[in-house]
Amino acid sequence: MNHPTEPKADKSGVRRHNLSLVLRTVHEAGETTRAAVAARVGLTRPAVSSLVEQLLDLGFLVESGKTFSGQAGRPGTVLKPADTGPAGLGVEINVDYVTVCVVDLTGTDRVRRTEHLDNRDADAAGVLARAAHIAAEALEAAAALRLAPAGAGLALPGLVSGGSVRQAPNLGWNEVPAETLFAEALTELRPGTAGLPLTSDNEANMAALAELWFGELGDLRTFLHLTGEIGVGGAIVVHGELLRGAHGFAGEIGHLAVDAEGPRCRCGSRGCLEQYAGQAALLAAAGADDVPDLARRAEAGEPRALAALAEAGRMLGRALSGAVNLLDPEAVVLGGIYPHLLAWLTPALTAELAARAVSGLWTPDAGRLRPASTTTDASRGAAALVLHDVLADPLAYATPIGG
Amino acid sequence: MNHPTEPKADKSGVRRHNLSLVLRTVHEAGETTRAAVAARVGLTRPAVSSLVEQLLDLGFLVESGKTFSGQAGRPGTVLKPADTGPAGLGVEINVDYVTVCVVDLTGTDRVRRTEHLDNRDADAAGVLARAAHIAAEALEAAAALRLAPAGAGLALPGLVSGGSVRQAPNLGWNEVPAETLFAEALTELRPGTAGLPLTSDNEANMAALAELWFGELGDLRTFLHLTGEIGVGGAIVVHGELLRGAHGFAGEIGHLAVDAEGPRCRCGSRGCLEQYAGQAALLAAAGADDVPDLARRAEAGEPRALAALAEAGRMLGRALSGAVNLLDPEAVVLGGIYPHLLAWLTPALTAELAARAVSGLWTPDAGRLRPASTTTDASRGAAALVLHDVLADPLAYATPIGG
Repeated sequence: MNHPTEPKADKSGVRRHNLSLVLRTVHEAGETTRAAVAARVGLTRPAVSSLVEQLLDLGFLVESGKTFSGQAGRPGTVLKPADTGPAGLGVEINVDYVTVCVVDLTGTDRVRRTEHLDNRDADAAGVLARAAHIAAEALEAAAALRLAPAGAGLALPGLVSGGSVRQAPNLGWNEVPAETLFAEALTELRPGTAGLPLTSDNEANMAALAELWFGELGDLRTFLHLTGEIGVGGAIVVHGELLRGAHGFAGEIGHLAVDAEGPRCRCGSRGCLEQYAGQAALLAAAGADDVPDLARRAEAGEPRALAALAEAGRMLGRALSGAVNLLDPEAVVLGGIYPHLLAWLTPALTAELAARAVSGLWTPDAGRLRPASTTTDASRGAAALVLHDVLADPLAYATPIGG
Repeated sequence: MNHPTEPKADKSGVRRHNLSLVLRTVHEAGETTRAAVAARVGLTRPAVSSLVEQLLDLGFLVESGKTFSGQAGRPGTVLKPADTGPAGLGVEINVDYVTVCVVDLTGTDRVRRTEHLDNRDADAAGVLARAAHIAAEALEAAAALRLAPAGAGLALPGLVSGGSVRQAPNLGWNEVPAETLFAEALTELRPGTAGLPLTSDNEANMAALAELWFGELGDLRTFLHLTGEIGVGGAIVVHGELLRGAHGFAGEIGHLAVDAEGPRCRCGSRGCLEQYAGQAALLAAAGADDVPDLARRAEAGEPRALAALAEAGRMLGRALSGAVNLLDPEAVVLGGIYPHLLAWLTPALTAELAARAVSGLWTPDAGRLRPASTTTDASRGAAALVLHDVLADPLAYATPIGG
């Protein structure tokens, strides 16, 4: 709506905006033509051509010599996002691993490194330095692919705001300036990354973003996203946007009390969901070494493993029925370790949801309870946040910062 | 931001929008001058004068002969929203009462009727006909004040969508077409209301809207709003907007399980918050006749009353700590019966929140747990929804529908 007090955007602002519009349109299409872009965004063909030329010059787009007949408009040269140039660096620091990935403008995961570590109660600066070391190696591999980081996203467990981990019970961290520590360590290893834009968020939020960007959600835009790790992370997505709450801390479903008198949790409360459905609790209850071992034992019908999974499913169902009653999501997406265990978690989980969610709020339709995509994780979500910024204002990233 | 595909608003559309802008500005100010409106909305003084004249002619604004010196600009004739003409009819149907109010454009509650009824398991059509009867009386009183309804808002317990109550466990209603039944009954009593625009929502959502419009929230815009009635209603407000969820059913905190093995609830689950902190459960546990009686008994130190209130506070704290962990609100606002009982509920409630909310998510700052304003309720919120529509497009309401 036209608003009389809205200042008129100046011409360079409009062009900047339109560069983003064209780049986002090509990104969403994967491959397309100038004519199709013009039809889609409602600009004239010459205007689109001029914008496309600039994006080609700056290395955000590439064209292939081939032509094809689209459904509408004349055949044209194929436009695609570049698979070189600006890329998103995604870094996930979790309780028992660090994952780093470099994602190019096409959305493809080009470099990936995972290191299993025990970060529980480890020195925060040391863990972040180790993450920076893995990131530096990944950036070296990315440079060989002619990819340079446009920024880095950090996915961190616990309460994250203002670039710091305020509180991460499972790591034992309090008020850790994660962005600063990571940037200092990375700059020492790769001086070219000095000044690299950094962004950080809770790992569950980042995993939900990855699902939105790279997953197989179809039209689904309002959902709860749980990630089973040592902790149980939660993210709330409403109409395609993360619900962050007043301080950015929303989604802590792992600390919903499912049994008020249950075992003590590292957060100080009792009977939190994590104490039943978190990875450590579940493996201990099942007597299993790791998730593949747990799945093997369940597959073999081992009663202890089956009982632990049923109990975890029951407690997941209790917590989820509370969250469903509060939030009325279209679906619940289970990520982390859960997709591998869903067959054994589901019966108790769905029974509990059926009994406890207000019935109009939850019907057991196909697709309402679903595993996260196997190609998404929090590190990809962290990289996607960087790509989002590049797509929103490509000119701001036109001189790639060396990695 | 200028978007190249955005259609240019035509002139009559712009004038219509600006009429709304001026009316909203006067409404928010309570009283003001043409000069202050012009400064506020960024239109020229002649443009504002022309818009004001039209709003005066249509009866949305009045001017008083007096002048005053504002902080900025020259003294001028005082402009105010009219206290005659279009008004909002608000109707709250709850388990044990029906309340109707008529609110004028200044936001003042001009007519109010409450009737205590036992609607539990009563015939839905009969309850809605009774509500229409009370509304017809209220409209007759409003007509004597030269107020005509611009629309009616219905505040209903349970899950409400598309003008119907999908499910209201405490009423025993399922798939009740509330708007249609109400409109039919009202039109029979007051034929002039035929075609009156109707809107409906959950009563807890309406109560939260009333708090936003008429309460004393200050800058608070992200909060949980609980209303203690027979049921316990919940509404989630994020950045000043109701969070409605995928189907409009979000906020059902009354059916969060606070003790998985607790007493059976009318919703089919066990140990729901309502079974401890709902009005019926609380009065039964305390052996009290009504809320004033309960307050008297607590005041007198009666152990049974104090124990029931402590238990209700503890269970409220359990449910709220889960909701706080999920939603990260700035504050929790307690309405309905709770403001009258807060002194006895608070100790157990805050202890439970301190123990169970992730500590970064809840600090016991002043104002984070607060009673709802005594001048707000769901019927006022329902009327506010009507006023919101009038303020958004006054021309659409320029020929008031007779009441």
